[in-house]
Amino acid sequence: MRNRRGEIVATSTTSMDVHDIARSARTYGVARYFVVTPVPSQKAIAWRIRGFWTEGERAVEASRRGEAMEYVVVADDLEETLRFIEDAEGVAPLLVATSARPASQAGISYRELRQRLRDDPRPVYVVFGTGWGMTDELVDACDVILPPIEGNSEFNHLSVRAAVAIILDRIAGRREQ
Amino acid sequence: MRNRRGEIVATSTTSMDVHDIARSARTYGVARYFVVTPVPSQKAIAWRIRGFWTEGERAVEASRRGEAMEYVVVADDLEETLRFIEDAEGVAPLLVATSARPASQAGISYRELRQRLRDDPRPVYVVFGTGWGMTDELVDACDVILPPIEGNSEFNHLSVRAAVAIILDRIAGRREQ
Repeated sequence: MRNRRGEIVATSTTSMDVHDIARSARTYGVARYFVVTPVPSQKAIAWRIRGFWTEGERAVEASRRGEAMEYVVVADDLEETLRFIEDAEGVAPLLVATSARPASQAGISYRELRQRLRDDPRPVYVVFGTGWGMTDELVDACDVILPPIEGNSEFNHLSVRAAVAIILDRIAGRREQ
Repeated sequence: MRNRRGEIVATSTTSMDVHDIARSARTYGVARYFVVTPVPSQKAIAWRIRGFWTEGERAVEASRRGEAMEYVVVADDLEETLRFIEDAEGVAPLLVATSARPASQAGISYRELRQRLRDDPRPVYVVFGTGWGMTDELVDACDVILPPIEGNSEFNHLSVRAAVAIILDRIAGRREQ
């Protein structure tokens, strides 16, 4: 990821991101939520959060957070998660980048991705950045990119938690209520 | 609000909620984000978070979080926020409840609320619950209620941060990308 000065960094794994995104992923029928970080201590944090809910809290309270957390897989890098998907699904996923900034990568609209999810059984893997966003190299490694989320103002500094929720609702939510 | 045992409680004001929802609100052109709590220490926390970003952090870094936080107003109860809106707008808002559970209150669809926001200059005030959701008395005090958010699974335990982001996108996001 990039930091606010544009430098390439490993961002922190925050417990709030893991909880929140796991619950949104579960709500929208996502098969796996990968938390990707090369830093061993950050991986340990992510696994510990998962374990707290799937093994600790769930046993003592009828919490449904534990159910959501079972979909979390912690990995070192994108390649490891791609191998995981190919092993599980027998086919490589469509790799979809997201960015708050316009990019030169081939675009896919929310409507097109929604249709693809509905009509095509092949897996779709949507990648979200933290910090100040995905590096150019990571965007380039993806097959396509979704357009930036537009609210109705010039302000576009959504949290990654909000961006994930909105994008899942656009591509996989029940329509039209 | 209700807690997990259905008792009526004042829930905690979490800094992550205030940050996250302020950024989503700003992105979708919301005029004010009211943090409502009757507990003095919780009000102090919310004002302190706001002050950190609007006065502290913003002065030293070109952070746009401070801009979002200026839309935050902390209040004791719903009545105080309704007076605030009537003073500012000269008219009472349409008060819209949200709930993860079906309710008997008169419904309004996402599409209808979207049209109303576009075509009618009168203010709309959407109320979100924390903890285990809004009390029946609070839902009854609202004019209408939005349907529960449906993902595409039977799981509906979104965080309030995710629910706010999704509902703002449904009623005020730019369509159709």
